[in-house]
Amino acid sequence: MEIEEILLEMKDTSELMVDLAYSALLYDNEEIAQHVIELEGRVDEWDQEVQKRAVERAIQDKDVEKALVFIRLADSIETVADGAVEIADVVLRDIEPHPVVAAALQESDTAIATVTVPTGSPATGQTLGEMKIASETGMWVIAIRRGDTWIYGPDENTLVEQGDLLIARGPMEAEEELRQYIGG
Amino acid sequence: MEIEEILLEMKDTSELMVDLAYSALLYDNEEIAQHVIELEGRVDEWDQEVQKRAVERAIQDKDVEKALVFIRLADSIETVADGAVEIADVVLRDIEPHPVVAAALQESDTAIATVTVPTGSPATGQTLGEMKIASETGMWVIAIRRGDTWIYGPDENTLVEQGDLLIARGPMEAEEELRQYIGG
Repeated sequence: MEIEEILLEMKDTSELMVDLAYSALLYDNEEIAQHVIELEGRVDEWDQEVQKRAVERAIQDKDVEKALVFIRLADSIETVADGAVEIADVVLRDIEPHPVVAAALQESDTAIATVTVPTGSPATGQTLGEMKIASETGMWVIAIRRGDTWIYGPDENTLVEQGDLLIARGPMEAEEELRQYIGG
Repeated sequence: MEIEEILLEMKDTSELMVDLAYSALLYDNEEIAQHVIELEGRVDEWDQEVQKRAVERAIQDKDVEKALVFIRLADSIETVADGAVEIADVVLRDIEPHPVVAAALQESDTAIATVTVPTGSPATGQTLGEMKIASETGMWVIAIRRGDTWIYGPDENTLVEQGDLLIARGPMEAEEELRQYIGG
Protein backbone atom coordinates (compact mmCIF):
# COMPACT_ATOMS: atom_id res chain seq x y z
CA MET A 1 0.00 0.00 0.00
CA GLU A 2 1.13 3.52 -0.74
CA ILE A 3 1.32 6.10 2.05
CA GLU A 4 -1.81 7.80 0.74
CA GLU A 5 -3.77 4.56 0.85
CA ILE A 6 -2.62 3.85 4.38
CA LEU A 7 -3.72 7.34 5.46
CA LEU A 8 -7.13 6.66 3.91
CA GLU A 9 -7.44 3.35 5.78
CA MET A 10 -6.41 5.15 8.97
CA LYS A 11 -9.01 7.85 8.46
CA ASP A 12 -11.86 5.41 7.79
CA THR A 13 -10.81 3.21 10.70
CA SER A 14 -10.54 6.11 13.14
CA GLU A 15 -14.02 7.31 12.19
CA LEU A 16 -15.39 3.78 12.58
CA MET A 17 -13.68 3.57 15.99
CA VAL A 18 -15.36 6.78 17.18
CA ASP A 19 -18.75 5.53 15.97
CA LEU A 20 -18.24 2.14 17.58
CA ALA A 21 -17.00 3.67 20.83
CA TYR A 22 -20.14 5.78 21.14
CA SER A 23 -22.29 2.74 20.26
CA ALA A 24 -20.54 0.74 22.97
CA LEU A 25 -21.29 3.51 25.43
CA LEU A 26 -24.90 3.88 24.33
CA TYR A 27 -25.66 0.17 24.61
CA ASP A 28 -23.15 -0.54 27.41
CA ASN A 29 -21.71 -3.21 25.11
CA GLU A 30 -18.29 -4.57 26.06
CA GLU A 31 -17.88 -6.60 22.87
CA ILE A 32 -18.04 -3.49 20.72
CA ALA A 33 -15.73 -1.66 23.13
CA GLN A 34 -13.26 -4.55 22.89
CA HIS A 35 -13.27 -4.26 19.12
CA VAL A 36 -12.36 -0.57 19.35
CA ILE A 37 -9.29 -1.58 21.35
CA GLU A 38 -8.33 -4.15 18.71
CA LEU A 39 -8.66 -1.62 15.89
CA GLU A 40 -6.34 0.70 17.78
CA GLY A 41 -3.53 -1.81 17.35
CA ARG A 42 -3.97 -1.61 13.59
CA VAL A 43 -3.98 2.20 13.59
CA ASP A 44 -0.79 2.19 15.66
CA GLU A 45 0.95 -0.09 13.16
CA TRP A 46 -0.18 2.04 10.24
CA ASP A 47 1.07 5.15 12.01
CA GLN A 48 4.54 3.64 12.30
CA GLU A 49 4.41 2.40 8.72
CA VAL A 50 3.57 5.90 7.46
CA GLN A 51 6.47 7.37 9.43
CA LYS A 52 8.89 4.82 7.98
CA ARG A 53 7.74 5.23 4.40
CA ALA A 54 7.56 9.01 4.64
CA VAL A 55 11.22 9.14 5.67
CA GLU A 56 12.19 6.64 2.97
CA ARG A 57 10.38 8.70 0.36
CA ALA A 58 12.01 11.90 1.64
CA ILE A 59 15.43 10.34 1.08
CA GLN A 60 14.44 9.68 -2.53
CA ASP A 61 12.55 12.94 -3.19
CA LYS A 62 14.60 15.26 -0.96
CA ASP A 63 11.18 16.72 -0.04
CA VAL A 64 11.15 17.33 3.72
CA GLU A 65 7.81 19.16 3.88
CA LYS A 66 5.89 16.44 2.10
CA ALA A 67 7.25 13.85 4.51
CA LEU A 68 6.20 16.03 7.45
CA VAL A 69 2.64 16.34 6.13
CA PHE A 70 2.36 12.57 5.96
CA ILE A 71 3.83 12.05 9.43
CA ARG A 72 1.73 14.74 11.09
CA LEU A 73 -1.47 13.55 9.47
CA ALA A 74 -0.87 9.97 10.60
CA ASP A 75 -0.16 11.18 14.14
CA SER A 76 -3.30 13.35 14.13
CA ILE A 77 -5.49 10.48 13.01
CA GLU A 78 -3.91 8.35 15.70
CA THR A 79 -4.99 10.93 18.28
CA VAL A 80 -8.61 10.66 17.10
CA ALA A 81 -8.30 6.88 17.47
CA ASP A 82 -6.86 7.34 20.98
CA GLY A 83 -9.94 9.30 21.97
CA ALA A 84 -12.14 6.43 20.75
CA VAL A 85 -10.06 3.99 22.81
CA GLU A 86 -10.46 6.14 25.92
CA ILE A 87 -14.24 6.13 25.45
CA ALA A 88 -14.21 2.35 24.95
CA ASP A 89 -12.07 2.06 28.05
CA VAL A 90 -14.78 3.70 30.17
CA VAL A 91 -17.16 0.96 28.97
CA LEU A 92 -14.63 -1.82 29.73
CA ARG A 93 -13.68 -0.72 33.23
CA ASP A 94 -15.55 -2.11 36.19
CA ILE A 95 -17.19 1.26 36.62
CA GLU A 96 -20.64 1.05 35.07
CA PRO A 97 -21.24 3.83 32.53
CA HIS A 98 -24.06 5.76 34.08
CA PRO A 99 -27.42 5.06 32.35
CA VAL A 100 -28.18 8.78 32.37
CA VAL A 101 -25.18 9.33 30.08
CA ALA A 102 -26.44 6.71 27.63
CA ALA A 103 -29.89 8.33 27.73
CA ALA A 104 -28.38 11.75 27.05
CA LEU A 105 -26.40 10.43 24.07
CA GLN A 106 -29.60 9.19 22.48
CA GLU A 107 -30.52 12.84 21.98
CA SER A 108 -27.48 13.32 19.76
CA ASP A 109 -27.79 14.90 16.29
CA THR A 110 -26.44 11.65 14.95
CA ALA A 111 -28.35 8.63 16.12
CA ILE A 112 -26.96 5.15 16.47
CA ALA A 113 -29.76 2.66 15.93
CA THR A 114 -29.98 -1.10 16.20
CA VAL A 115 -32.43 -3.00 14.02
CA THR A 116 -32.93 -6.77 13.83
CA VAL A 117 -33.68 -8.09 10.33
CA PRO A 118 -37.04 -9.88 10.75
CA THR A 119 -38.42 -12.91 8.90
CA GLY A 120 -39.54 -11.88 5.44
CA SER A 121 -37.56 -8.64 5.40
CA PRO A 122 -36.75 -7.45 1.87
CA ALA A 123 -33.16 -7.10 3.09
CA THR A 124 -32.63 -10.83 3.60
CA GLY A 125 -30.18 -12.32 1.10
CA GLN A 126 -29.27 -8.95 -0.40
CA THR A 127 -25.97 -7.12 -0.06
CA LEU A 128 -25.79 -3.74 1.64
CA GLY A 129 -24.94 -2.32 -1.80
CA GLU A 130 -28.05 -3.82 -3.38
CA MET A 131 -30.18 -2.60 -0.50
CA LYS A 132 -28.87 0.96 -0.86
CA ILE A 133 -29.72 1.37 2.81
CA ALA A 134 -27.65 4.53 3.10
CA SER A 135 -29.14 6.47 0.23
CA GLU A 136 -32.67 5.12 0.82
CA THR A 137 -32.86 5.80 4.54
CA GLY A 138 -30.02 8.16 5.48
CA MET A 139 -28.55 5.66 7.97
CA TRP A 140 -25.48 3.59 7.26
CA VAL A 141 -24.54 0.27 8.73
CA ILE A 142 -21.34 0.39 10.77
CA ALA A 143 -21.51 -3.12 12.24
CA ILE A 144 -23.57 -6.31 12.10
CA ARG A 145 -24.00 -8.90 14.82
CA ARG A 146 -24.76 -12.34 13.40
CA GLY A 147 -25.30 -14.92 16.13
CA ASP A 148 -22.09 -14.86 18.11
CA THR A 149 -19.97 -13.09 15.51
CA TRP A 150 -19.60 -9.44 14.61
CA ILE A 151 -18.86 -7.83 11.26
CA TYR A 152 -17.29 -4.42 11.77
CA GLY A 153 -17.19 -1.86 8.98
CA PRO A 154 -19.21 -3.96 6.51
CA ASP A 155 -19.09 -2.84 2.88
CA GLU A 156 -21.38 -2.87 -0.15
CA ASN A 157 -20.66 -6.59 -0.75
CA THR A 158 -21.70 -7.69 2.74
CA LEU A 159 -24.76 -9.97 2.61
CA VAL A 160 -27.60 -9.29 5.03
CA GLU A 161 -29.17 -12.34 6.67
CA GLN A 162 -32.39 -12.86 8.58
CA GLY A 163 -31.83 -12.30 12.29
CA ASP A 164 -28.86 -9.99 11.75
CA LEU A 165 -28.62 -7.15 14.21
CA LEU A 166 -27.68 -4.05 12.22
CA ILE A 167 -25.95 -1.19 14.03
CA ALA A 168 -26.38 1.92 11.95
CA ARG A 169 -25.43 5.55 12.20
CA GLY A 170 -27.12 8.57 10.74
CA PRO A 171 -29.20 11.65 11.48
CA MET A 172 -31.93 11.27 14.13
CA GLU A 173 -34.71 11.78 11.61
CA ALA A 174 -33.56 8.79 9.56
CA GLU A 175 -33.81 6.16 12.30
CA GLU A 176 -37.51 5.48 11.75
CA GLU A 177 -37.00 5.24 7.99
CA LEU A 178 -34.37 2.56 8.53
CA ARG A 179 -36.74 0.61 10.73
CA GLN A 180 -39.50 0.70 8.12
CA TYR A 181 -37.12 -0.08 5.25
CA ILE A 182 -35.75 -3.17 6.98
CA GLY A 183 -39.25 -4.10 8.11
CA GLY A 184 -38.09 -4.39 11.71
CA MET B 1 -26.97 22.71 31.60
CA GLU B 2 -26.71 19.40 33.38
CA ILE B 3 -23.52 17.31 33.09
CA GLU B 4 -25.28 14.88 30.75
CA GLU B 5 -26.30 17.69 28.42
CA ILE B 6 -22.78 19.08 28.37
CA LEU B 7 -21.40 15.63 27.49
CA LEU B 8 -23.91 15.45 24.64
CA GLU B 9 -22.82 18.86 23.33
CA MET B 10 -19.20 17.76 23.62
CA LYS B 11 -19.87 14.57 21.69
CA ASP B 12 -21.72 16.32 18.86
CA THR B 13 -19.10 19.07 18.69
CA SER B 14 -16.18 16.62 18.63
CA GLU B 15 -17.78 14.69 15.77
CA LEU B 16 -18.43 17.92 13.88
CA MET B 17 -14.80 18.91 14.46
CA VAL B 18 -13.51 15.65 12.98
CA ASP B 19 -15.79 16.06 9.95
CA LEU B 20 -14.77 19.69 9.49
CA ALA B 21 -11.08 18.87 9.92
CA TYR B 22 -11.24 16.28 7.15
CA SER B 23 -13.21 18.72 4.96
CA ALA B 24 -10.56 21.37 5.54
CA LEU B 25 -7.90 18.88 4.48
CA LEU B 26 -9.84 17.69 1.46
CA TYR B 27 -10.47 21.19 0.15
CA ASP B 28 -7.30 22.75 1.59
CA ASN B 29 -9.59 25.27 3.27
CA GLU B 30 -8.01 27.37 6.03
CA GLU B 31 -11.30 28.99 7.07
CA ILE B 32 -12.80 25.63 7.98
CA ALA B 33 -9.56 24.61 9.71
CA GLN B 34 -9.67 27.84 11.71
CA HIS B 35 -13.18 27.05 12.87
CA VAL B 36 -12.04 23.66 14.15
CA ILE B 37 -9.50 25.48 16.35
CA GLU B 38 -12.23 27.79 17.66
CA LEU B 39 -14.51 24.89 18.52
CA GLU B 40 -11.67 23.32 20.48
CA GLY B 41 -11.80 26.22 22.92
CA ARG B 42 -15.42 25.42 23.62
CA VAL B 43 -14.73 21.72 24.14
CA ASP B 44 -11.93 22.60 26.57
CA GLU B 45 -14.25 24.79 28.62
CA TRP B 46 -16.93 22.12 28.69
CA ASP B 47 -14.35 19.57 29.81
CA GLN B 48 -13.43 21.72 32.79
CA GLU B 49 -17.09 22.42 33.54
CA VAL B 50 -17.85 18.67 33.59
CA GLN B 51 -14.94 18.05 35.97
CA LYS B 52 -16.14 20.78 38.32
CA ARG B 53 -19.76 19.67 38.34
CA ALA B 54 -18.88 15.99 38.64
CA VAL B 55 -16.91 16.68 41.80
CA GLU B 56 -19.68 18.94 43.17
CA ARG B 57 -22.22 16.22 42.52
CA ALA B 58 -19.99 13.60 44.12
CA ILE B 59 -19.92 15.67 47.32
CA GLN B 60 -23.74 15.63 47.33
CA ASP B 61 -24.25 12.00 46.21
CA LYS B 62 -21.15 10.45 47.80
CA ASP B 63 -20.91 8.51 44.51
CA VAL B 64 -17.26 8.45 43.47
CA GLU B 65 -17.63 6.08 40.52
CA LYS B 66 -20.34 8.11 38.83
CA ALA B 67 -18.18 11.20 39.05
CA LEU B 68 -15.28 9.32 37.51
CA VAL B 69 -17.41 8.16 34.56
CA PHE B 70 -18.34 11.76 33.82
CA ILE B 71 -14.77 13.01 34.13
CA ARG B 72 -13.25 10.23 32.03
CA LEU B 73 -15.85 10.58 29.31
CA ALA B 74 -15.30 14.31 29.06
CA ASP B 75 -11.53 13.77 28.86
CA SER B 76 -11.97 11.09 26.17
CA ILE B 77 -14.15 13.31 24.03
CA GLU B 78 -11.57 16.05 24.45
CA THR B 79 -8.95 13.69 23.03
CA VAL B 80 -11.07 13.12 19.91
CA ALA B 81 -11.35 16.90 19.57
CA ASP B 82 -7.56 17.21 19.98
CA GLY B 83 -7.07 14.88 17.03
CA ALA B 84 -9.34 17.08 14.92
CA VAL B 85 -7.30 20.13 15.95
CA GLU B 86 -4.06 18.41 14.95
CA ILE B 87 -5.52 17.64 11.51
CA ALA B 88 -6.68 21.26 11.17
CA ASP B 89 -3.23 22.37 12.23
CA VAL B 90 -1.66 20.57 9.28
CA VAL B 91 -3.92 22.63 7.00
CA LEU B 92 -3.06 25.89 8.78
CA ARG B 93 0.72 25.48 8.81
CA ASP B 94 2.75 26.91 6.00
CA ILE B 95 3.36 23.38 4.77
CA GLU B 96 0.93 22.73 1.94
CA PRO B 97 -1.13 19.57 2.50
CA HIS B 98 -0.04 17.38 -0.35
CA PRO B 99 -2.71 17.20 -3.11
CA VAL B 100 -2.20 13.44 -3.32
CA VAL B 101 -3.46 13.14 0.25
CA ALA B 102 -6.61 15.10 -0.59
CA ALA B 103 -7.13 12.91 -3.65
CA ALA B 104 -6.73 9.77 -1.54
CA LEU B 105 -9.26 11.01 1.02
CA GLN B 106 -11.84 11.39 -1.71
CA GLU B 107 -11.91 7.60 -1.93
CA SER B 108 -13.10 7.39 1.67
CA ASP B 109 -16.17 5.31 2.60
CA THR B 110 -17.69 8.52 3.83
CA ALA B 111 -17.65 11.28 1.26
CA ILE B 112 -17.58 14.97 1.99
CA ALA B 113 -19.32 16.80 -0.83
CA THR B 114 -19.83 20.46 -1.64
CA VAL B 115 -22.89 21.54 -3.58
CA THR B 116 -23.92 25.07 -4.51
CA VAL B 117 -27.67 25.73 -4.39
CA PRO B 118 -28.50 26.90 -7.93
CA THR B 119 -31.18 29.33 -9.11
CA GLY B 120 -34.55 27.63 -9.03
CA SER B 121 -33.45 24.84 -6.69
CA PRO B 122 -36.35 23.35 -4.72
CA ALA B 123 -34.18 23.85 -1.63
CA THR B 124 -34.27 27.65 -1.80
CA GLY B 125 -36.25 29.20 1.05
CA GLN B 126 -36.79 25.90 2.82
CA THR B 127 -35.26 24.77 6.08
CA LEU B 128 -32.97 21.76 6.22
CA GLY B 129 -35.73 20.05 8.24
CA GLU B 130 -38.34 20.71 5.56
CA MET B 131 -35.96 19.53 2.85
CA LYS B 132 -35.28 16.26 4.72
CA ILE B 133 -31.97 16.21 2.88
CA ALA B 134 -30.54 13.58 5.21
CA SER B 135 -33.29 11.02 4.90
CA GLU B 136 -33.93 11.73 1.22
CA THR B 137 -30.34 11.58 0.04
CA GLY B 138 -28.25 9.95 2.76
CA MET B 139 -25.96 12.99 3.07
CA TRP B 140 -26.20 15.47 5.89
CA VAL B 141 -25.19 19.06 5.89
CA ILE B 142 -22.37 19.84 8.35
CA ALA B 143 -21.68 23.42 7.26
CA ILE B 144 -22.97 26.12 4.91
CA ARG B 145 -20.98 28.95 3.33
CA ARG B 146 -23.19 31.94 2.58
CA GLY B 147 -21.23 34.73 0.91
CA ASP B 148 -18.50 35.57 3.39
CA THR B 149 -20.06 33.87 6.38
CA TRP B 150 -20.12 30.27 7.51
CA ILE B 151 -22.80 28.36 9.40
CA TYR B 152 -21.26 25.40 11.21
CA GLY B 153 -23.39 22.54 12.46
CA PRO B 154 -26.66 23.86 10.98
CA ASP B 155 -29.86 22.30 12.33
CA GLU B 156 -33.34 21.48 11.04
CA ASN B 157 -34.40 25.13 11.38
CA THR B 158 -31.58 26.51 9.23
CA LEU B 159 -32.94 28.15 6.07
CA VAL B 160 -31.29 27.30 2.76
CA GLU B 161 -30.72 30.20 0.37
CA GLN B 162 -29.86 30.37 -3.30
CA GLY B 163 -26.12 30.45 -3.80
CA ASP B 164 -25.39 28.68 -0.50
CA LEU B 165 -22.47 26.30 -0.61
CA LEU B 166 -23.53 23.19 1.30
CA ILE B 167 -20.82 20.99 2.80
CA ALA B 168 -22.31 17.59 3.43
CA ARG B 169 -21.14 14.26 4.74
CA GLY B 170 -22.41 10.81 4.00
CA PRO B 171 -21.70 7.52 2.26
CA MET B 172 -19.99 7.75 -1.15
CA GLU B 173 -23.03 6.38 -2.97
CA ALA B 174 -25.23 9.22 -1.70
CA GLU B 175 -23.18 12.12 -3.11
CA GLU B 176 -24.81 12.02 -6.54
CA GLU B 177 -28.28 11.82 -4.98
CA LEU B 178 -27.57 14.99 -3.03
CA ARG B 179 -26.47 16.75 -6.19
CA GLN B 180 -29.66 15.77 -8.01
CA TYR B 181 -31.87 16.58 -5.02
CA ILE B 182 -30.46 20.08 -4.67
CA GLY B 183 -30.49 20.48 -8.42
CA GLY B 184 -26.83 21.52 -8.45
